[in-house]
Formats: sequence, C-alpha cells, structure tokens
Amino acid sequence: MKPQDAYDWLAGKSREAHVVGGIGALVGWDQEVNMPPKGAAHRAKMRAWVAGQHHKLATNPKIGEALAAAEGADWDEGQAANLREWRRGYELATKLPEDLVKRQALAASKGNEAWKEARSADDFSIFSPCLGELVEIARERAECLGYEEEAYDALLDLYQADLTAAKVGAVFGDLRARLVPLLERILDWQGDVGPDPIQGEYTDEEQRAFNIQGAELIGFDFAAGRLDVAAHPFCSGTCRDDIRLTTRYNTADPLPSHFGTLHEAGHGLYEQGLSADHEGTPLGDSVSLSIHESQSIFFESMVGQDPAYWEHMMGAYKAAFPGRADTLTQEQMVRRVNRVGRTLIRVEADEVTYPLHVILRFEIERALFGGEIGLADLPGVWMEKMDELVGVRPPSDADGVLQDIHWSMGGFGYFPTYAMGRMNAAQLGAALTREHPGWRADLARGDGATPLAWMREKVHSRGCLHRTDELMAEATGTPPLADEYLAHLEGKYKSIFA
Amino acid sequence: MKPQDAYDWLAGKSREAHVVGGIGALVGWDQEVNMPPKGAAHRAKMRAWVAGQHHKLATNPKIGEALAAAEGADWDEGQAANLREWRRGYELATKLPEDLVKRQALAASKGNEAWKEARSADDFSIFSPCLGELVEIARERAECLGYEEEAYDALLDLYQADLTAAKVGAVFGDLRARLVPLLERILDWQGDVGPDPIQGEYTDEEQRAFNIQGAELIGFDFAAGRLDVAAHPFCSGTCRDDIRLTTRYNTADPLPSHFGTLHEAGHGLYEQGLSADHEGTPLGDSVSLSIHESQSIFFESMVGQDPAYWEHMMGAYKAAFPGRADTLTQEQMVRRVNRVGRTLIRVEADEVTYPLHVILRFEIERALFGGEIGLADLPGVWMEKMDELVGVRPPSDADGVLQDIHWSMGGFGYFPTYAMGRMNAAQLGAALTREHPGWRADLARGDGATPLAWMREKVHSRGCLHRTDELMAEATGTPPLADEYLAHLEGKYKSIFA
Repeated sequence: MKPQDAYDWLAGKSREAHVVGGIGALVGWDQEVNMPPKGAAHRAKMRAWVAGQHHKLATNPKIGEALAAAEGADWDEGQAANLREWRRGYELATKLPEDLVKRQALAASKGNEAWKEARSADDFSIFSPCLGELVEIARERAECLGYEEEAYDALLDLYQADLTAAKVGAVFGDLRARLVPLLERILDWQGDVGPDPIQGEYTDEEQRAFNIQGAELIGFDFAAGRLDVAAHPFCSGTCRDDIRLTTRYNTADPLPSHFGTLHEAGHGLYEQGLSADHEGTPLGDSVSLSIHESQSIFFESMVGQDPAYWEHMMGAYKAAFPGRADTLTQEQMVRRVNRVGRTLIRVEADEVTYPLHVILRFEIERALFGGEIGLADLPGVWMEKMDELVGVRPPSDADGVLQDIHWSMGGFGYFPTYAMGRMNAAQLGAALTREHPGWRADLARGDGATPLAWMREKVHSRGCLHRTDELMAEATGTPPLADEYLAHLEGKYKSIFA
Repeated sequence: MKPQDAYDWLAGKSREAHVVGGIGALVGWDQEVNMPPKGAAHRAKMRAWVAGQHHKLATNPKIGEALAAAEGADWDEGQAANLREWRRGYELATKLPEDLVKRQALAASKGNEAWKEARSADDFSIFSPCLGELVEIARERAECLGYEEEAYDALLDLYQADLTAAKVGAVFGDLRARLVPLLERILDWQGDVGPDPIQGEYTDEEQRAFNIQGAELIGFDFAAGRLDVAAHPFCSGTCRDDIRLTTRYNTADPLPSHFGTLHEAGHGLYEQGLSADHEGTPLGDSVSLSIHESQSIFFESMVGQDPAYWEHMMGAYKAAFPGRADTLTQEQMVRRVNRVGRTLIRVEADEVTYPLHVILRFEIERALFGGEIGLADLPGVWMEKMDELVGVRPPSDADGVLQDIHWSMGGFGYFPTYAMGRMNAAQLGAALTREHPGWRADLARGDGATPLAWMREKVHSRGCLHRTDELMAEATGTPPLADEYLAHLEGKYKSIFA
C-alpha cells in the first residue's frame, strides 16, 4: 500500500468509527434521558452490539498494516498528529489480551455491585475482595500496556496520553504544600457565612429557562445542542453539531443546576468548537480528559462564579425567580456561589477543597500500585489524609473511602485528570486575561464572546494537533503547573471575602 | 449444516437484525423528536451506516445456505412460520439488483424534491417526468420480484405478503358500490352541523395530560413507552418494551392530537403485545401493514370515537380543560368527533370518506401499471374520481393528485393497506363484540381492558404465525371483507345522527 493510500484508508476508517461512536453515544444518552424503565434489557443488547462493532473497527488488523505503510513517509504536522493518535488508539485497542478485557469487565460488574452493597452497609470489607481483584487486573493491564517508571503510569496514560505519576506528583506536591494553608486563610477570610440567602421553591421550568440564559451567555449554540434532564448529569452528543447537555433540578436551590449546566456547557463548547474540516479524525477530536475538564471548569468556575458574571446575570436571576430574590444583592450572591467549607464528598466540594480530594486519591492510588500500602490500609489512610488535607475526618467509610464509583469499575488513574483540568483552566484563564484584560468588564456588560473566541483559537480548533503539555505550553507559555490555580483562588477569595 | 443448526443460526441472525433495527429506529426517532437543526448532516451518515449494516445482515449469502439446509425438515408450525418469513425477507433483500436499488433511491430523492416544488407551484408537469421514471423503475422492480397476474401485484406484495390486486379489487369494488350511496345517507342524517362546540385555547401540557389518560384507558403501558412531540406523528420504538408515540398539538382544538395519540397508541399496543419469547424472530414481529393499521384504527375509531368512550372520558375532558367545556354535552362531543364531510385531503378525511380516497388511489395505480392510463391522464382522472367517489372536485392539483408524498418516493402499492386496515379493524371489532357483547358497557364505566385482552390473544401474540388472510379468518371467521366496515358505519352513524 502506498503511504497516501494507507493514510486515506485510515482516515476513512477513523471517520466510520466516529459515526459509530456517535450512534453509541445516542443510544447511551437516550438510555439516561428518555428510556422507559422496561427498555433496559433490550438497551443492553443495543449497547453491546454497537460496542462490538466499534471494537471490530478499532482492532481491524489492516489498521496495523496501513499504519506501517504510512508511518515514516513525509507528512505535514496535522497528518503526523493523526497518524500518532491512530497508532495510540490501535495499540490501546489491541495490546490487552481478550481474556484480560473479559476478566476486567466481569470484575467491574461484580465490583460495582459489591461497592453499592458496601456503601449502603458502610462496610469496606464487603468491597475489599472485589477491589483486590480489580487492582490485580489493573496491574496486569499495566504490564501489557508497558511503562517506564512505575506501573501506575500505564494506568494514568490510559486516560491521558503521556501523563505520568512523576508529572502529576510534581504538580500536586506543589499544590498540596500551598493549598492546605491557603484553605485555612480563605476560611478565616470567609468567617461565619450566616443564613442561606437562597429561599423558596423553584420549578424545573424556571430553572431550565435561567440555565439556558447562562449557557447562551457563555456561547453554547442551541441550534447544535440541547439541554435535558438526567439523574447523573453529563455531556454527550452524536457529533460537534449535536451536543446533548443534561442537568437535574433541586426544588430548594436553583444554583447547583445552574453551575451544573455551565459545567456541561463548558464540555459542550469544546465539542462544538472542534474542527469541522477534520471531523472524525484526531485533528477534529478532543485531546485529553484534563483539557476537556479545563473547559467545563473554566466556564463553570472561572466565568460562572466570577463577580462579573453575576453583575450581568443578577437581573436575569431576579426576573427568572420573581418573589424569591427581591432583596438578594449581587454581593450576597457572589459570596453564596463561592462559599467554601471542609467538604467530605468530592462531588460536593467547592473550588478550594476539590483539588485536595483529588490529591488524596492520587496519593492513595500511587502508593497502592507502588506496594507501599495494602487494601486493608485504605479506610484508615483515607481518614488520616482527609484530616491532613481538608481538616475533617469522615464519620464513616461510606462518606470516606467508599464514596466514589470509579474504583468499583477498575477506574484507577482517572481522578488526577479532574484536578489537572482545574490547573489547566486557571492557567488558560490567566493567559486569556493577559491577552484580553477587559474580558471580565465585557462579561459584566453581557458580552461573553471573548473567552469562547480565545478558547476556540487556542484549544478547541487544535484538536489533537499537540498533546496536552504541548497544547498548554503553546497556549499559556508553560506546561501545566499549580501556580495559576493558587493565584486564582488567592486573588478571588481575598477580593470577595477578605 | 444440520437443519437444527441452520435454524438456530438463522434465529441468531434474525435477533441481531432486530437489535440493529431498534438502533436504526432510535436514530430515526431522535431525529424527528430531539435532534437540533445543525445535526442533520451527521445524522444522515448515522442512518446510512445503520442501514448499511442492516443490509449486510439481510443479504448475507449464508442465509441462503442456512435456509436451504433447514427447509424441508420436520418443523412445528411456529418454526415453519419463521422459516417462511426468513425466506421471504431474504428474497426481498436479494432479488433486486444493487444497481436498481441505487437508481430507485436516486429517483426517489429527485422525485421528492420535484414533488415538493410541483405541489407548491400547483403544477403537475414539474413532477411528471420524475414520476414517470419512478413508475418505470417500479415496473422493473416488479419484473425482478415476479408476479402471477399483474405487475402491480408484485408492488402490493412488497408491503403485505400475498396481497394481490384481484383481492384488493374484490373488497374495494364491493366497498365502493355500497359506501358511495351510504355517504349520501350519512350526510343526510347528519344535516347541518351548526357552530363548532370546541372553543378557546388549549396548552400543550393540558392536551398531553388528557392524551395520556386516553392512551392509558385503552391499555398503553407507559413503563414500556413514551409520548413526545413530532411534526409528522408516528409510532416507533427500539423493541416491544420501549415504544415511542408521537403527536403534535393544535392550540385551537385538542381533539386531533387526542385521536392522533390513540391512533399511534393502537400501533404501540400491537408492538407491546408481541411475544417476548419470540422477540427478534418473525413469530415475535408484526405480520403486515394492514394488520398494524387495523390496530391503530380500532383503538382510534372503533374505541375512541365510540359513544361509550366519551361516556367515560367526558368528565376527564372537562377536568382537563376547565372553563372551555362547561356546557359541552356528551352528545355534542360524540357528534363532533364523528363529523362527516366531503373531504378533499386523505389525511384529513373522516371514517366514512377515508376509504373512498384510498379506492381512488388503488384504481389509479392499478390502471397505471396495467397500461390503461398514462401519466398525463392522472390529474384529470383524479378530479373525475373524486367527483364520483366523494362528490367533490378538488380546486387544484395541489389538493388533488399532488397531495400525497408516497408516489414521490416510489411508494406504489402502499395506499391499499390503509383501507384494508380499516376493513380489518371493523371485522375484528365485530368478532370482539360477538364474543364480548358487554365491552362497550365496561368501557363506559372506565374499564377498557377487554378489547386489548382480546386483540392480545387473537392478533398481537400471534406475530407472523399466520399471514394476514389466515390470521383474519382465525380471529373472525372470514378473510378480510368490506361487510363489517359498512355495517359499523351504518350502525354507528344512524344511531348518532339519524
């Protein structure tokens, strides 16, 4: 096969896999949003069939032949990036023996059931044997995938190409050292938060209308997307032109749904901003979980929780919820949405404590795969580290080591991308502010265009042209560091509370 | 291959095709109900991919080998029915040369555009050349598919196994002879309909809630289905446990949406009542379009437009639309929902004139494929036949020969199943009444269980065990005839209006 023919064939297969991926995403989205309860059994068959077709496409041995034929020829930067990512995808899809994949799926299925039972009984010992099996399988996967320094690197790399424990450890070590004392200072500045200024009841329709205003302000295109309800909110879609946001509504408080919507809209903006010309190839695909999360966090926290956002949105809020915010001031709202506390649960944590929850999980996962701690140590280590990092001891394992679903499915190495995403968000935000110092003033006047335009240029349209560290360096001047996140927190919370 | 192995292999492939069919249905349903406008281009790729996979499954040459290995062995009645329908499906999928299928798709695409233009310009000559090409291609398809008496038979058989022009002609000839004078008598009985008793405005939410009450009364299971909004209402779904009804709302009148919902729910009840044990094989699939339509028409017209239905639902109607039906009587409602007129448009026609619209199309299609009339005759023949059958001349071709989409896609032979479905509905209803004379009295008291239970036993659970004529004969004593439809109309309209 000539290199160009091989490349074109690979591009065709890549676009086909993208179409199949979109079908799978729709089948999954509909399951969470629309499916009537009795449809579950058949839905599992539909998902399995699509997954099987996707696997067949990803492991087609002709991909290996075409890659060999194309690699080494003279390609431009974009084509070389596509070939690099096709190679990575093919190796990830083919390096794991089928037997190991099946054992992993079985252990994850058992593990998830055991985890649910353990959590509701608040008894780690129910989950522990399954967790042990999942860790052993993860070790085997790491050996198959290969790594340079530690086995945990291979697991991190599964979720983000080129991520290593050493890189994460350097950023998180710096972050930990400076964030733990900063949390204390911020809590001091905040003082007593007083009674909750959010009172009354809020209908789903009112909240939805207000959420759509927020999503439109940050630039989400509803001609290429939707907002629906799901029990566990997520962002999905069939392609860049059809992005599905989901949220859930809390009758007593419209803010969680609003920030949840901005978060998912941030993910959606990334997808809507991917290159149309390169759709279906890596150049038209998102680059990594930590860059994806940087977009959701940037639009949720750096934009949506900024005083400038509420300078514009406070009137819309009062109009959206008449009679329930008449005396609420913008200052009260800004303090309310930026409230900080010694949170127990990661998914409920604020901007300041969230990364501490992730650092805890990273340190535990790294020590577990490094053999420094064993399964039996996990509940106790969790308690101690919560005390060290957040300054609170969970009253139970259900609120401690058993709180997350990830390990029960064998998802080791995923957590760090959440906090790395926050570092990236702040670092991108700082670069944006250097180039466009007036973006907050524009936002306060109701013009939210600049942040999106900048992200479009620096991040969204780049796809997988560069991997995460290079992308960050091109956009901001350095690879991911903790500095800007810390500066963001210190600056914002001082100005609000101190 | 041993016969049993061949059979089992065919059953596995049949179930796989059913899963793929469900995925295709979901992709199509979502396009009509949820898809944001910009998603259209990618959606076409998704549909094409699923259709391609379905075609690959249906034309797999191993199916031919497995059928040959299984046929002739000793099978029970159900297995024999599955083999019979697999054979039919394989032949339909493989008999048409690929080139002809492509030409048909291209001509349909061009034809549909030309038809839209012709209809909006009220100019048949814009559509005529494309229609000519579609007719020629249909003739070629008929030759490939084979037939005994006339080419049109092969087209009818595409939509319903074993349907022939001679069979349809016998039923429609009888129907025409008796229905044309009956329409005149019914119009006399009805007299002047007076002012419309439906007044005011009706929100979508009010209409939806009332529609759900109606659908639940006839037995639709919302734990295995949904009701959503679509511009062109239809019934779809991924499997018997996940049936998607759609409707549209008219602010000025809640009745079209209500009967539309009952119609789609009738289709949905058939699907929900298919055999779970045989899901994915013909024994667990609907048998024909005219039986499917019999279910939608039975629940829409024979149940929903019956005075007994309104005896129960009148209170619900008044509660659903407070202030807009306070003085509306049950008698007024029954007369209103059974209003008859000399309708111009098939899809707006009432129970009495609807079959006349179909007879017109059948007579034209049969004469066209029999060479008795040419393309240029169509507009004039349409006008004359409307005059003869319904007693009205369309003011334009847009309201005449250009009103339906079907021919523009090459759908010749489809129309007769609509009216045959009505014959079947009335004939099944008459058999139900013979066996359960009290079902209307039960319905008037709010118990709608009997009609569904009877249809479940006699129709839904049978799947493709028998073909249409045999199914009807087993359930009612005779193959499809016009008698019961005429008796139903005469009886009902005399009791309401005379």
